[in-house]
Amino acid sequence: MIKVVLFDLDDTLIDTTKLAEMARKNAIEGMIRAGMPVDFGIAYHELLELINEYGSNFSHHFDYLLRRLDLPYNPKWVAAGVINYHNTKMAHLKTVKGAKRTLLRLKEMGLRLGVITDGDPIKQWEKILRTEIEDYFDEVLISDFVGVKKPHRKIFEKAVGRFGVSPEEALMVGDRLYSDIYGAKQIGMRTVWFKYGKYASRELEYLEYADFVIRSLEDVVEIIRGIESEEREERSDKEVHAD
Amino acid sequence: MIKVVLFDLDDTLIDTTKLAEMARKNAIEGMIRAGMPVDFGIAYHELLELINEYGSNFSHHFDYLLRRLDLPYNPKWVAAGVINYHNTKMAHLKTVKGAKRTLLRLKEMGLRLGVITDGDPIKQWEKILRTEIEDYFDEVLISDFVGVKKPHRKIFEKAVGRFGVSPEEALMVGDRLYSDIYGAKQIGMRTVWFKYGKYASRELEYLEYADFVIRSLEDVVEIIRGIESEEREERSDKEVHAD
Repeated sequence: MIKVVLFDLDDTLIDTTKLAEMARKNAIEGMIRAGMPVDFGIAYHELLELINEYGSNFSHHFDYLLRRLDLPYNPKWVAAGVINYHNTKMAHLKTVKGAKRTLLRLKEMGLRLGVITDGDPIKQWEKILRTEIEDYFDEVLISDFVGVKKPHRKIFEKAVGRFGVSPEEALMVGDRLYSDIYGAKQIGMRTVWFKYGKYASRELEYLEYADFVIRSLEDVVEIIRGIESEEREERSDKEVHAD
Repeated sequence: MIKVVLFDLDDTLIDTTKLAEMARKNAIEGMIRAGMPVDFGIAYHELLELINEYGSNFSHHFDYLLRRLDLPYNPKWVAAGVINYHNTKMAHLKTVKGAKRTLLRLKEMGLRLGVITDGDPIKQWEKILRTEIEDYFDEVLISDFVGVKKPHRKIFEKAVGRFGVSPEEALMVGDRLYSDIYGAKQIGMRTVWFKYGKYASRELEYLEYADFVIRSLEDVVEIIRGIESEEREERSDKEVHAD
């Protein structure tokens, strides 16, 4: 029986990729409005390349962008980029469609819920607090804080340990076949791949570790009901055979 | 004749001190709401001490606060502090009472305006852009970008140089007797001390360098009119004597 449901955060509960794209586009538009003399398409393409090379947590995206575009350093343009980036992130940070309804239903069904996520602990908590989903969760495990990253088995073991359940009693829901699905399956958890966002067609070599594949988060409720009724049948079968 | 008016930014055009105080208080309240088990007064006092020791641009105020309070590191509390701090800064960043009206009147009088400020160029531009006062200014000089800090005479020389006026044709308005008033007076600018904010009763040993003292920013308009009519009188006196 499923007692605990563990969720990944980025692009599972919170629309991170869509938001980042919107924020970056608005940043470039803001820089151009502030006087940066570059075509939008060229600047946006260069910014994506830069993020790809330096990582998304690099804190000098906009000054480096000017260097890449052979433009003089201009703090007004950088500030305009920073403002538009943050304003977008503030205004549009949202949970994935159906996420809050799903969390509420699972709580009503008596399940305990947790989050297992990679990334900077403060930033991840910021997302949880800003979207006001913190009260749904009994445990939040952030890999940088625990010291291991998904798919390392230790973070999944730690999660089920905190809830005091066996891995078979826990369901992992995530958008990444490698870090979420393969990771959780290593210790014997049940796995639900949320085919969503930019990883919807990547890491398919780990598809075999997914027990279920969903395109809507709300389907998690049905999956748990299905597992429960299946197990009830198995038990009644056993009772029949025991007769 | 005055042709150019140069303004300091923090606590002259923009209410920085009041905002910082509000943001810090809200940050502590947010951390307590998120579960930090400390009395508000104790935590706020400790935060002020910490900022005093490490400077206001230090980026680990809230994690260090936990260390100082002998509390375990907790990214949820830190995130709650960061969110409340930034939300306050976003919502309440405002120009000083009368600032926009004053800038508009000076423009109507045909004066050219500039900003001379210390601090991080991107953060200073953020304040200017967020409060939407950028279009009033022909020149913005930020000391970290120029390479010297107020009261170094070079930043004042550079400012009048950019406008192509002599120091006597430029008026400096600022809240700090040392960096703004003594600084500008060194090169012979006229000076207006805006007695406002936390420096309203500090650095009084430099009071002699202030040509005028005001408590309301709008008084700058009258000061300029006064200088103009005085100079008109001097000119007509000379004409009389020349007869």
